[in-house]
Amino acid sequence: MKKIIIAGTIAFDEVTTPLGHSGKKLGGSATYLSFASALFPARIGVVSIVGNDFPRKYLQKFTNRHIDISGVEISKEHKTFYWKGLYYENMNKRDTLITEVNALAYFNPVLPEKFKRADLVILGNLHPGIQQEILNQLSSRPDLVILDTMNFWMDTAMESLKKVISRVDLLLVNEEEARQLTGKYAMVHAAKKIMRMGPKYVIIKQGEYGSILFSQDDIFFAPAYPLEKVYDPTGAGDTFAGGFAGHLSLYDKIGLPEMKNALICASNLASFTVEAFGTDRLEEITRRDIERRIEEFIRMTSYPLQQKINV
Amino acid sequence: MKKIIIAGTIAFDEVTTPLGHSGKKLGGSATYLSFASALFPARIGVVSIVGNDFPRKYLQKFTNRHIDISGVEISKEHKTFYWKGLYYENMNKRDTLITEVNALAYFNPVLPEKFKRADLVILGNLHPGIQQEILNQLSSRPDLVILDTMNFWMDTAMESLKKVISRVDLLLVNEEEARQLTGKYAMVHAAKKIMRMGPKYVIIKQGEYGSILFSQDDIFFAPAYPLEKVYDPTGAGDTFAGGFAGHLSLYDKIGLPEMKNALICASNLASFTVEAFGTDRLEEITRRDIERRIEEFIRMTSYPLQQKINV
Repeated sequence: MKKIIIAGTIAFDEVTTPLGHSGKKLGGSATYLSFASALFPARIGVVSIVGNDFPRKYLQKFTNRHIDISGVEISKEHKTFYWKGLYYENMNKRDTLITEVNALAYFNPVLPEKFKRADLVILGNLHPGIQQEILNQLSSRPDLVILDTMNFWMDTAMESLKKVISRVDLLLVNEEEARQLTGKYAMVHAAKKIMRMGPKYVIIKQGEYGSILFSQDDIFFAPAYPLEKVYDPTGAGDTFAGGFAGHLSLYDKIGLPEMKNALICASNLASFTVEAFGTDRLEEITRRDIERRIEEFIRMTSYPLQQKINV
Repeated sequence: MKKIIIAGTIAFDEVTTPLGHSGKKLGGSATYLSFASALFPARIGVVSIVGNDFPRKYLQKFTNRHIDISGVEISKEHKTFYWKGLYYENMNKRDTLITEVNALAYFNPVLPEKFKRADLVILGNLHPGIQQEILNQLSSRPDLVILDTMNFWMDTAMESLKKVISRVDLLLVNEEEARQLTGKYAMVHAAKKIMRMGPKYVIIKQGEYGSILFSQDDIFFAPAYPLEKVYDPTGAGDTFAGGFAGHLSLYDKIGLPEMKNALICASNLASFTVEAFGTDRLEEITRRDIERRIEEFIRMTSYPLQQKINV
């Protein structure tokens, strides 16, 4: 069974969307990443920090999923990272109302010995310096290192971000982030420039429109599953990344064909997360739910005469 | 050979985009619609009006393509419709700087006898009253009537627009138009509501993200071909519709499988139009160019393990 090591935040999130208010809930990149990848038969280890106010029942959500939390530090002096956000009708835009960094400001990741050899590593949204520190502690090169980041680190720590980007295999960004990182408007150009910065692969996330996987000689699309209602987009990107790594853990070798399948699986898995607030929907689904949605997706993207579209 | 009757504007267009200025060029919905459908082996007839200033060499562009322009009225008193627009870096938004309606204000379409029996009819962007008048003059029911429209008619002639919508088989709209027409935010809901208004099929155009075909029990995606540079989005939607009808003219019977292929063909064809100003690129391409792009598209959307995406 493959081992996936995940670094990211474990947090309290609170959002208001056009469809309601979430209340204070379990959130954070490492939460979505690990819950999503734990839907696959892989060994998952999480590296993160929580505060002295973090409920035991939340930690149990991880252990119930056989997620190894021996890399999760519990701060004695500080509270858990807290984020409050507001989404508008166009769920692609959000405003941050409150960010209380709390314990996360004191996070010095220490990888348990058993985490140092991994098949897949996901560096979820964190300060790029911390992401690098995690890479430094690995004792062997994983098959694939996936990096997620956001605009905030481009504004505040671009040089450090570029360093960590140069060390990973796959970068996950949305369109706005790709443009800010590269100064290129068209995604074809932005992705090429990112690949010159180090990663062999780039995934551009386009929210409700789907995602695109770029490699040196190939472009591959996964449209998004069309939803009737989006309750809360929080965590969709992390669910996507976790599902992507989880799916890849099924294969002996990771190449482009496997990544294409993983992209489709990840895209469909992420569509569940936004159907409820926080991790609610992600917590209740099973592999059978994902399989059913993928079957539907295949129907929606297959064209019977594919081999011969006359012009 | 199938007969396609196209109604729409023939115009002078002038645009400024982040990549330059077009100068005053041949444009209009009927121009793009007919040039696109003329790439297929169909008989094309155009119903439109031009002014007394319309150059003979522009009319020859139609006749050189074997497009029957006996339905194009040449106004003695008025000038040709003129539109000037400005696009921003996000090419999905544009501002109209000048609209001179000119001869179009006096357009009373009269279908030549030979146009009254058609296999496919495209009602391009025009006043919905004129679109209805064209339907009234048909002497038999076509296999498929395709309607294109825009926000402007929703603002100024909604009741008339709803009447013509109730009489067509397929409505083509972008996301913003679908929302304005239905009051529904999610495309799944908007498309369902449009189908209750009459059309059996709805295509939602999402610009650089592709398009979605909705029918009663089916949803089908065509991602857009990824371009490095978009020079001028003008006419992309009309090229799409013209290519869609042109492709459908290849089949004896039109059903959902044929429409799916047509959507992919249309989407790829439209991607050429935006690669240059006005009709420049559309005028120079051949069926071989479209075939090549579709082959590339199929590569970009095929996943080798499609039949079995393990979860």
